[in-house]
This record gives sequence, C-alpha cells and structure tokens, in this order.
Amino acid sequence: MSKERLYLFDTTLRDGAQTRGVDFSVEDKRNIALALDRLGVDYVEGGWPGANPTDSAFFAAPPALSRARVTAFGMTRRPGRSADNDPGLAGLTGTTAPAICIVGKTWDFQVDVALEIPRSENIDIIGESIAHLRSKGREAMLDAEHFFDGYKANPAYALDCLRAAHGAGADWVVLCDTNGGTLPHEVSRIVSTVVDAIPGIRLGIHAHNDTDNAVANSLAAVLAGARQVQGTLNGLGERCGNANLVSLIGTFCLKPDFADRFETGISEKALAHLTPTSRLLDEILNRSPNKHAPYVGQAAFAHKGGLHVSAVLKNPKTYEHVPPEAVGNERQVLISDQAGKSNILARLRDVDIELDPKDSRIDRLLEEVKEREFQGYSYDGADASFELMARRVLGQVPDYFFVDSFKVLVERRYNARRELVTVSEAIVRVQVDGHRMLSVGEGNGPVNALDAALRQDLGKYQSYIDDLELVDFKVRILQLGNGTAQSEAPVSVDRWQAGTGAVTRVLIESADKAGNRWSTVGVSANIVEASFQALADAIVFKLYRDGAPAGTGPAE
Amino acid sequence: MSKERLYLFDTTLRDGAQTRGVDFSVEDKRNIALALDRLGVDYVEGGWPGANPTDSAFFAAPPALSRARVTAFGMTRRPGRSADNDPGLAGLTGTTAPAICIVGKTWDFQVDVALEIPRSENIDIIGESIAHLRSKGREAMLDAEHFFDGYKANPAYALDCLRAAHGAGADWVVLCDTNGGTLPHEVSRIVSTVVDAIPGIRLGIHAHNDTDNAVANSLAAVLAGARQVQGTLNGLGERCGNANLVSLIGTFCLKPDFADRFETGISEKALAHLTPTSRLLDEILNRSPNKHAPYVGQAAFAHKGGLHVSAVLKNPKTYEHVPPEAVGNERQVLISDQAGKSNILARLRDVDIELDPKDSRIDRLLEEVKEREFQGYSYDGADASFELMARRVLGQVPDYFFVDSFKVLVERRYNARRELVTVSEAIVRVQVDGHRMLSVGEGNGPVNALDAALRQDLGKYQSYIDDLELVDFKVRILQLGNGTAQSEAPVSVDRWQAGTGAVTRVLIESADKAGNRWSTVGVSANIVEASFQALADAIVFKLYRDGAPAGTGPAE
Repeated sequence: MSKERLYLFDTTLRDGAQTRGVDFSVEDKRNIALALDRLGVDYVEGGWPGANPTDSAFFAAPPALSRARVTAFGMTRRPGRSADNDPGLAGLTGTTAPAICIVGKTWDFQVDVALEIPRSENIDIIGESIAHLRSKGREAMLDAEHFFDGYKANPAYALDCLRAAHGAGADWVVLCDTNGGTLPHEVSRIVSTVVDAIPGIRLGIHAHNDTDNAVANSLAAVLAGARQVQGTLNGLGERCGNANLVSLIGTFCLKPDFADRFETGISEKALAHLTPTSRLLDEILNRSPNKHAPYVGQAAFAHKGGLHVSAVLKNPKTYEHVPPEAVGNERQVLISDQAGKSNILARLRDVDIELDPKDSRIDRLLEEVKEREFQGYSYDGADASFELMARRVLGQVPDYFFVDSFKVLVERRYNARRELVTVSEAIVRVQVDGHRMLSVGEGNGPVNALDAALRQDLGKYQSYIDDLELVDFKVRILQLGNGTAQSEAPVSVDRWQAGTGAVTRVLIESADKAGNRWSTVGVSANIVEASFQALADAIVFKLYRDGAPAGTGPAE
Repeated sequence: MSKERLYLFDTTLRDGAQTRGVDFSVEDKRNIALALDRLGVDYVEGGWPGANPTDSAFFAAPPALSRARVTAFGMTRRPGRSADNDPGLAGLTGTTAPAICIVGKTWDFQVDVALEIPRSENIDIIGESIAHLRSKGREAMLDAEHFFDGYKANPAYALDCLRAAHGAGADWVVLCDTNGGTLPHEVSRIVSTVVDAIPGIRLGIHAHNDTDNAVANSLAAVLAGARQVQGTLNGLGERCGNANLVSLIGTFCLKPDFADRFETGISEKALAHLTPTSRLLDEILNRSPNKHAPYVGQAAFAHKGGLHVSAVLKNPKTYEHVPPEAVGNERQVLISDQAGKSNILARLRDVDIELDPKDSRIDRLLEEVKEREFQGYSYDGADASFELMARRVLGQVPDYFFVDSFKVLVERRYNARRELVTVSEAIVRVQVDGHRMLSVGEGNGPVNALDAALRQDLGKYQSYIDDLELVDFKVRILQLGNGTAQSEAPVSVDRWQAGTGAVTRVLIESADKAGNRWSTVGVSANIVEASFQALADAIVFKLYRDGAPAGTGPAE
C-alpha cells in the first residue's frame, strides 16, 4: 500500500525568532536552514522580508537548499488596497522564495475589533491575496490566525474564510492555534469538520504549547486529515513555544501508526541526524540542551538501577520505546547507589575501558563506587572523575604532581578609601619531580583564587594545562547523616557545625582548545576542599588523556 | 449538574526522585509533601519505604497533611511467598500510610522473561497482594506496569491482570505507560476498551513523556474514563519525565471541557498557588525554573510587540488562553510597570506590610527590587530578606550591630600525625553599642566557621540568637549575561576569572525553638561574602521580629 505524503514546515527562523532573548544573525539563519534541508524538512520559513534587516538580507541571498523550499512569511493585503498594489505583497513576491505563507484573520471578533472592517471584506482580502500569489507563480499558503478560537465563536464565518483561500487556489490552508489554548480532542473534532466541509482543501496545523499539548494537537490534526505540520526545532517560540518538530519527526518516522501510513521527506539516514540538528540550534543559541527532551535529550534513554539495567541490556525494547540510535541518540547507563555489576561494565565501556565480566577487579571497583556514593560523590555528571577513579583502581594513572598543602584566605574589610572590599587569596605548595614550588593566586572568591594558584606553575606539566578552561562550576549541598543512614531529621546547627551534617558536592566542567570537554567532582564538608578535589581531577584527567609523562614522586 | 470527581496523585517524591541528579533529603520531601497538600492534591506518594534510608525515614515520621493521603509505594508479593509472609508487603503495611500503591506486571512478555513464572501465578500474585492490603484496612492501588505495551501484545492477558486486582478489591487500578511510547489516540482506544471490559473498575493513568505526549495521554485517558491522574511537579522524572501535574492542573481547573465536567480537590484559591508550588520544586532542586513552562513559566504570558501588547491590554482573551492570575502567574508586558507595581503590593501583603497603592515609596521599592534582581538576588525563596529589604526602604529596621571586618582562612595541610586535614577558621570584628568585639570561630568549612564566629558573641543581642539554628543552606551559581537578561549559557573561564560572569547566590533557612522558620539570601561573586550577607540577614530578621532594642550606632 502506498503511503500518504506528510509535509513538514519549519518556522524556527520566523515564529521561533519571536522568542524573547532569541536574536538570529543572517549567518545563523543560513546555518539552520541548511541543517533543516539536510534533515529533509519540506519548507523552511526564513522570516518576514521587509520586517527587519536580518530577514531582508536572508531573502536577498537565500541559502542554496537541495530540496527544502525557502518560504517567505507576510500578511494578506491591507484593507483599501488592491492586491496588485499592496506593498506588503509586493515585498513578498519581490523575493525569489518559491513558497509564500500569508497570515489572515478567521475569527469574527478579531475582524470586528482589530481590523475594524466588514466581515465580508476580510473574506475578499483573503481570496484576492492568495490569488495574487498564485498569479505570480508561487506556492501560496494561508496561515489562518486564531482559527480554533474563531471556529468556536462562529464556525460558519471561520469556514467561509478558509473557503475563500481554497477557492482562490491556496496550496495549503494552515489552521493556527494562535493562543495555544486548544486541546487535542477539540483539534480532532474541528479538523474533521473542516475536512468534511471543504472537500479538496489541503490543511496544515500550527500549534503552540500553552497547555503542554502542541505535539499532541499536531498529531491529532494529522489523524483528522491535516497533511502539513508546522513547528520549530526544540519547540522554540514565544510564551510556551511552538510545536516541537523534533519530537514530531521522531513519532512520524518511528511510530507504526504514523510511519506505516505516512511518508515524510526524512530518510532513515537523515533521521540519525535528528539529535545533532537539535543540538545545533542550542549551540547557536548558546543554551544548554534540554537533557530530558523526547527522543534527542541526553537523558531520553538513560537507565538507572541495577535490575532495570540488566533487563535493558538483555532486551532493550523492554524499557525503550524506540532504538536511540535511530534518532542519533544513545543509551546511557547511570551509576547510582543501586549500582549493579552490569551498570559498572556498561559505564566502563562508555569510557573505553573493556573488562572481562569475570575480572575480580570489578568487585573492587563496585565497592569503591558504592563507598564514594555513600560519601556523597555522584558520577552521573562527572565522567572524567569516574574514569580516573576506575583507572586508579586498575593502576593505570601515574602520579604527576603532589600538592603538599594549600591555604585560602577570604577577607572583608574597608580599604584605604573606606570602601568595603572582599578579597580572596590562595597559596599552594606543590611538588613536581621532587621540586617544591610555591604558587599564589587571587580571585573573586576562594575557589577562583585556589584555581589560579594551582594552575600558576606546574613545572613540566604547565604546557599541558595552558589551554585548560573552566567552563562550568556547580555546587550542591547534601545532607548526609552519621553512620550508614541518611539523616532522619532536619540537620540541626550542632550537627552542621560538628561536621557530621551538610556535605558539599562540587561539579566542574573543563574544556580545552581542541574542543574536548570533561567533568569532575569533589565532595567534602568544606566547599574549598571539595572544589580542590574537582580542580585537581580536571588537571590530572587532561594530563592522562594527553599522555603526559609520569612524575618521579615526592621528595620525601 | 453535579460534577464527577477527578483525583490527583502526585509521585514527585517517588517516580520523580528517580530522575538523574535528583537527590531529595527527608526535609525536602516533607516540604514538598506539605506544599502538595496545600495545593489540594489527593495523594502524595512519598517513596518506597525500605528501599533506601531517606524513604524509610520519611514514612517513619510522615508529615501531618491536612487532606492529602500519604501513599507508600512497593511491589506485589514475591513469587513463592504468601502475601501474609512477604517482607516487602510487611514493610508497606508496617507504615502508617493510609494508601498503598503496588506495582505489578501485566505484559506477558515481562512475566515470561523478567519474572520467569507461569502467567497464571502472576495473576494470583496481583490478586493476593491487593487483597492483603485491603485486609489491613488500606486503600489499595495497583500500578499496572507496562500496561499499554502489554495490552498491545496480549489484550486478554493484560485485562485478566486488571480483573485480578479489581476482583480483589483494588480501590484503583492505574494504567502505566512505563516506557512512555504510547500515543494519545492509542490511550483513548485502550482505556475505552478497559472501561467497557471491566465494569466498575476505577482507573488511573500514569504517563511518561518520551514522545512529548504525557499530558495529552493523561487528558485522553480521563476523557475515556480514567478518574485518577498520576504525575509530578514540573514533569520531573527519569528519561523525558512524567506527566506534568502542573500543566494538567491548569487544564483541569480552567478549561471548560474539563472544569465544567470534573471537580478536583483544588480550590480556586489554592489554584493561585500553582506557580509558587512549581517554583518551590525548582528552588529545592536548585534549578532555574523553565521560563517557557505552560501556565506557570515566567514567559507563559509574556507579550512582545507594541500592537500585540495594546491588543492584550485592551482585551486579554485575544492573546491569552487563560487569565495568568488564576494560576498565580502574571502577564509580562515590556512597556508597562503596572504589573510590577501590583506584584510588589501583593508581595508586601504576603509579609504583612500594607501600603496605600499611591504611596510614593512603592516606586522606590520597585526600583530597589529590580536593581537587586538584576544583580542576581531572588526573593522567591527568601521571604525574610524580602521583608527586611522592604522595611529598610521604609525606614523600619533599626541598626543593631555592625560588622567592621571578617577574615576566613581555609587550610589544607598535614598535621603532626602526618594526616591530611582541612581546617577553617574565621575572625569577625563586630561592634555593639560602640563596643568593639573580636570573635573567632572554627568549622568544617569557611561558611560554617564564619557563622560560628558571627554568633559567638553579639553582646546584648546574644540571648535573642541563642536558639537560632541553621536548618538549610543552598548555593547556586548564576551566570549573568550582559545587559538585563540572565543567561543559561556556559561562561568562559575569562569571564569567570574576571568576576563579571558567575555570581553565587546563597539561600539560608533558619529556625528557632518556637518553631519559626525564615529564609534569607545573599549574592556575590564570592561565596563567603554571599553567605555572610545571608547569615547577617538571618540574625537581623530574628532581632527585628523578636523586638530587640536598637543599638546606639558605631563608634566612629
């Protein structure tokens, strides 16, 4: 049985660009458009030519896409103008965009209040604007603004607006849930009604996530007869975002009820670029990717708990709704305090340590992990510390340098100008190959000062760490109890002061010029000590990975 | 027409606690349970007693909830044991939890492969376990694990499993989409079938967000006949999260298709706490709230663009699907300070400061709050600091003591016994009524030492702070961008070292013997300085509240 074609329309560069804090450059837009084209999206809405210099520049020299159609966004003609004589429409047809999408009103209330023209005139505007685009040889689409609210208020009028577009030759009529308040069961019902009421109309859906249902609304519309789906990468968009095209693509391509019935422009091979494409947008926006994003999040296929993990490894479909590699993602096995042997083995494999399951050192490693997790360490976000810990147990990490002692001073006082200042200084005594060195550093806080001192002079290792950068620093206060149990009551100040209560976990992320990134962890009741551990691990990990020679040991 | 009752079941503390990086303390769990109770949730699943020390401690002394039922989670009895003789079930009935939810298998494949017992035995296990809970007088629920996958594989067997629970007197049978791969149209169909097949069964839905449809799946289940909905605050949960109870509550309470037909335990007044409750979880997790979260996100009702804004102000329903204040959120309109002003007034009222809306000091307060929030302060979780800040602007807080300077030293070295030790000492110079005093303190970390020194001797104020206890201490590293917006982006080491990037926010919760609790905040690039601010505010707040006499000012 041949499949029906389902068209994907990306509006990351137009509606997504409306998001507060998002400010694409022309180059950003070109890069995103090219990535969407490689993925196999059918339409890439680049912006609104004439609305701002970036969008005009984008359409003046659109990227050469291999299959996706660059789409320009605009409005229906103004009241009182002919379509031929409308500057807005002329701006659109003046571009080379093969497809043009114009927004028009379909809610009687909006026509009365916002446009303040007779309702019949609005219908004429829609029809004439679409006809004009068609006459210029463009693929013509109507974005029916507020369609669902309009339909609920006055179904006959809302349908008449769609009929005007369809009658004028619109290639697509896109039903927009502009406020995002429509629920899936309503979308199902209303789209079905439109399909029945206007035979031959080709419908699209444009959903927003204000009730957390943008993806479900899009799916409901497709099942009811829509064949074009508009959305954005990662659900970018104002307020609560647009429909997340990444989630939709996963479902359209991998879920039998859709994949067996519909065909999109996305090949199996391109689908494996879904995760990198999603991450690219975050990279351009300089955001941390959402770890919990469906299909493409770092945690989307993460498994925790020993029993569970051995079940996953035995038969992934037990706990994974789709194979992670299909979307270019990967399974993650977490080390947790329920860590089983199979967790450890899987986790070692992740950091390229292959051990025979019968190797007796695995039990020692497991003990070490449990002991450390009991102390408050968490290796979930600290791969480099995990790898170092494992390789140390396996005797693979040489000694490089020794920190004999450190001292950190934080002082708040009035300076000579009677200004209140807080200063931080650190002194580190370190040995490299038996040579003792004294380093000092200052910073805006104790950890910062310690980091500066530690990296001021590491002798023969200095060249290895010159390009090391700290890119993130996180602190978490844990409340661990005495003995084997976690605390059973609020931690009183006595316990807090006695050092048996709160423990600090520090996570540090480091990077180097080659683009490597690694994370390390430190735990102590003392935040400075915890930070020191994570800083030292960050340096040792780089020395190990870059093959620095071993040191000769301490002088005494 | 009387409405049908719809029950809300929160599993933030059980299934949500499975999330990577989430590590609730007993105190965290109690605070969240109390907030859920205030909101009006029906069931608060606190964890799995016996599975780990935190959960056992929680159930050993459960919080006193006014209406929500504390629910314990566990498993059906083990194969080969009688229910009366099963240690797992005994652990559950050994708690005082009025409701108990046990997970059982309903997918034939899982019974064959994971349990490796005859399928009929699994059915017996379910029935006997539920009957046992009922015989102990508890409300008994079955979490039907992998139900949707099980139903698709072998509908007759999956239904037989449910029948066993229902026949044994289960108060609720909860259909779990354990892998999160089921789509809304499938949920509709399958739940309807179950309703028809097992008359009288009371169904719940437990959805995960692996296809971005957890909320839609929950809605679909309710429309098909489920009357209990399980979810978590902010959709917390492993992989892509559980159904977001916050989004669901917004829809159940505000959308006519649900609100006209169903009644939940959430009053109109409690609904206005939805936003603070959502933010509280982020505060406890030390996370930045999702700005784009449906209903409760900071940007959920943000409007951009002049025309659009005036349309919103003229008639909010044009661009807002629900009124933001109904869920305790607020409209964000860039051109108007009106929202800010009423917000400030509302927050002042929360701390019992009544001001005339025309009072000119409100503008000064608003400026102060904006300036401080720009610096990184957040008063959401620090009521005492907010109240102090406001009362200071209003000239109501006297001077008590003055800290001239402090010095904190952290040293790591080998002691006389050649053990590696890290010590922290602090010296504080403080004036009370013109008397200069020098206090020293030591502790397990720099903040702890500073706290000890600060409270060692406050002269005539000492008796006021003798019973002051620090009960919680939280640190968050903020990455402030340039301009006015916060940024979630990684900060490079240059900015980090230059002190223009990362800023530390410290939140301290204090308590006294009378049972009062208050929270204070400090912000600085230096964690010790930030902690000092929060510690000092904690002391001043107690002096103010307890009516301590003013000091006579500094000596010079």
